[in-house]
Amino acid sequence: MTRKTKFPADSASESTHLVLPPDSNVHGTLFGGRIMEWMDVIAGIAAGRHAGGPVVTLSVDSIRFSRPINMADVVILKASVNYAGTTSMEVGVYVEREDPQNEHREHCLTGYFTFVAVDAAGRPRQVPILAPQTDKEKQRYQRAQERRAQRLDASTTK
Amino acid sequence: MTRKTKFPADSASESTHLVLPPDSNVHGTLFGGRIMEWMDVIAGIAAGRHAGGPVVTLSVDSIRFSRPINMADVVILKASVNYAGTTSMEVGVYVEREDPQNEHREHCLTGYFTFVAVDAAGRPRQVPILAPQTDKEKQRYQRAQERRAQRLDASTTK
Amino acid sequence: MTRKTKFPADSASESTHLVLPPDSNVHGTLFGGRIMEWMDVIAGIAAGRHAGGPVVTLSVDSIRFSRPINMADVVILKASVNYAGTTSMEVGVYVEREDPQNEHREHCLTGYFTFVAVDAAGRPRQVPILAPQTDKEKQRYQRAQERRAQRLDASTTK
Amino acid sequence: MTRKTKFPADSASESTHLVLPPDSNVHGTLFGGRIMEWMDVIAGIAAGRHAGGPVVTLSVDSIRFSRPINMADVVILKASVNYAGTTSMEVGVYVEREDPQNEHREHCLTGYFTFVAVDAAGRPRQVPILAPQTDKEKQRYQRAQERRAQRLDASTTK
Amino acid sequence: MTRKTKFPADSASESTHLVLPPDSNVHGTLFGGRIMEWMDVIAGIAAGRHAGGPVVTLSVDSIRFSRPINMADVVILKASVNYAGTTSMEVGVYVEREDPQNEHREHCLTGYFTFVAVDAAGRPRQVPILAPQTDKEKQRYQRAQERRAQRLDASTTK
Amino acid sequence: MTRKTKFPADSASESTHLVLPPDSNVHGTLFGGRIMEWMDVIAGIAAGRHAGGPVVTLSVDSIRFSRPINMADVVILKASVNYAGTTSMEVGVYVEREDPQNEHREHCLTGYFTFVAVDAAGRPRQVPILAPQTDKEKQRYQRAQERRAQRLDASTTK
Repeated sequence: MTRKTKFPADSASESTHLVLPPDSNVHGTLFGGRIMEWMDVIAGIAAGRHAGGPVVTLSVDSIRFSRPINMADVVILKASVNYAGTTSMEVGVYVEREDPQNEHREHCLTGYFTFVAVDAAGRPRQVPILAPQTDKEKQRYQRAQERRAQRLDASTTK
Repeated sequence: MTRKTKFPADSASESTHLVLPPDSNVHGTLFGGRIMEWMDVIAGIAAGRHAGGPVVTLSVDSIRFSRPINMADVVILKASVNYAGTTSMEVGVYVEREDPQNEHREHCLTGYFTFVAVDAAGRPRQVPILAPQTDKEKQRYQRAQERRAQRLDASTTK
Repeated sequence: MTRKTKFPADSASESTHLVLPPDSNVHGTLFGGRIMEWMDVIAGIAAGRHAGGPVVTLSVDSIRFSRPINMADVVILKASVNYAGTTSMEVGVYVEREDPQNEHREHCLTGYFTFVAVDAAGRPRQVPILAPQTDKEKQRYQRAQERRAQRLDASTTK
Repeated sequence: MTRKTKFPADSASESTHLVLPPDSNVHGTLFGGRIMEWMDVIAGIAAGRHAGGPVVTLSVDSIRFSRPINMADVVILKASVNYAGTTSMEVGVYVEREDPQNEHREHCLTGYFTFVAVDAAGRPRQVPILAPQTDKEKQRYQRAQERRAQRLDASTTK
Repeated sequence: MTRKTKFPADSASESTHLVLPPDSNVHGTLFGGRIMEWMDVIAGIAAGRHAGGPVVTLSVDSIRFSRPINMADVVILKASVNYAGTTSMEVGVYVEREDPQNEHREHCLTGYFTFVAVDAAGRPRQVPILAPQTDKEKQRYQRAQERRAQRLDASTTK
Repeated sequence: MTRKTKFPADSASESTHLVLPPDSNVHGTLFGGRIMEWMDVIAGIAAGRHAGGPVVTLSVDSIRFSRPINMADVVILKASVNYAGTTSMEVGVYVEREDPQNEHREHCLTGYFTFVAVDAAGRPRQVPILAPQTDKEKQRYQRAQERRAQRLDASTTK
């Protein structure tokens, strides 16, 4: 059976949240555990769309918080599949806050999530080939491949 | 001061959720209270984007559940401002489920949320004029105006 | 088999909540999504009591917020079945806040929830006849019938 | 200033919950931590109604689980002030489950919660005198007094 | 089959929490219902470790709040099995708050939880013998036995 | 003022959780977002203990899920400060599941969290020197230093 091909745009996923009191930490800003939960969900949705079925989280890397997110901020999460191997996929998640007054957006954090597609019995399952189209997508594909090599290297030498 | 004008597309908001066990009811499908919570949040984000500041919920109407949403479904909520009066706005929320296997989407429910823009002291605050552009937007504007007349009528005669 | 008859009082349901920080919105008052969740639960309990078994939400109408509910307020929700058709029921929910200092109660919002009774396989199931007794119950029955006609009318012409 | 007198019926509080999946434990029945949370809230509402202002939990005693509560059960909690000292009050909470099919109710657990009334600065504040009326209320008052003596005795000898 | 023997240290369990906004009550301190939920979980873990399998909560006694716990406090819960009968066990939970500035710890509350070990069908199941070793453990064993006699006595005379 | 010195053991933190239904994903195992939330909390507690005051999350790296965690599993999280710079600290979190039948523990995932200590105004604040004692602690210190160099390098070349 020929393996299907999909584009990054086919599985790109976006979510919009509002920071409410139960999402806040003791500083009155967005709690780190909550934003990671939101990132894991939207990254898993993107991976599931590429895989066409259930996925499980394998690893999380390079989450960088560059700016706090405040109570009442609108938070926009954009996830896209950067790279797909035989059964695993790397998804990048880009997070922005939006100023409620003027809709000005600022980048707040980024992170990389790796998932494996699974069948009903929980065994790894082949995913479609990812065909990056734009220059940005090709660059993301390349960098994700480098991060993947580093992760495999790290797990071998440990 | 001239009142600003905005288009429906300026405040259109979208959110994507995954139905997890804490979101389920005793039938194993998405709990009605949870989907209304998600709708209220995304509708409030759209209204806040149009108003350029905080809003509070005034009323909720005509939520129709046409199809259950299952555990593990991806749920997409689309909110757009249908109508804006002096200080209040009606937002329509359109909810679809996505089959995780084939990305086929089905309409599951719709609802209308009315918000009022408020200033720091909680008093009603003027919002920009809404200028519908497409035929669909113009139709939504008209129907929202009719619903508004009915609501005002109902509150007078009660 | 003769269809059973029940009175509105047989299924009247009441719940009492305290507004805690996780229930609050960014204005420090009760979050709209949370009160709708509470209303859906107590309305579903009333409908389930009338039906004598599981029910699912069909529609939500005419939720009107007339007054904000504050942190630390006691909130009282009263639900009663207004009307019962063959398999569906309309439940009205009346919400009051209670001042913790003097127990003075104020009406804050109202809403109408429609449910359908279902059997184990999720198919619509016949419910008992509703026999309104008091003048208030008869008036509610009549108005619920009018709302039902409007809903059916709206769904036909759409 | 003469101290106000209140009856147990003045502060009697009732709440009705539905057991949903997030409330369940690993046995598929109602999680013990959740029912204690619900009991603490309704007991605090009853104490706050008697005190006419904020209260804080001092102690919890004699919670006895006599029967498990299942998923989809309706749970009814009834709280009433059994005894009031100068600044503290004992509240009894009686919990029943209701069979969704036939509305048959079964007693599932009971517990005693002691609260102290506080002023804005968190200092103990005098509460109204409790005047038990019925035989049941007088018996509860007496038993609560005995439990109070035991608690004071236990805290002295420890 | 000879009944296994275990020491209190074999099942001693500890948990560490941070008080976040969703854990707070209307006074800005830790909500009583939440701390009881945390106590029930860690007590159940200790009982489950002694029993070597699932347990269900039977009763909760003598929770005494001696000091409020504040937002941003680190909370340490220590649970140990005080006494084991044939199928039931009493677990004591000791709760401290830690000052984030200087790690100074203060005792805040204590409570006793009784569990019964169950098999897959939910029937009571024999647990290992508990062999207290230190003087403190022997004292706890003795006191738990006294509390047990009181509980049995109370349930008989009621 | 001389800068204080602390040992890794001074801030080592441990937490124990039970996997309940609201913590599960659609596969019936522990939801990735929830375990990251638990890791962020316990890592922040360890960093806060080393810093002697509030901290905020800067980055998260190298979370590797090697084995799923099941419903009803006991989960043990151990956090220790691996490295401390002038104002930032790297904390390693080691997560194990415990079989409820036989207390056998298995390693499930690991991750590295970086925090910065902040003063009341949210500005970076100096932390004590970390003095690793055991060989394991010295090795962790060294590796954390290498990861830090990589992170700084990555942020420069990006």
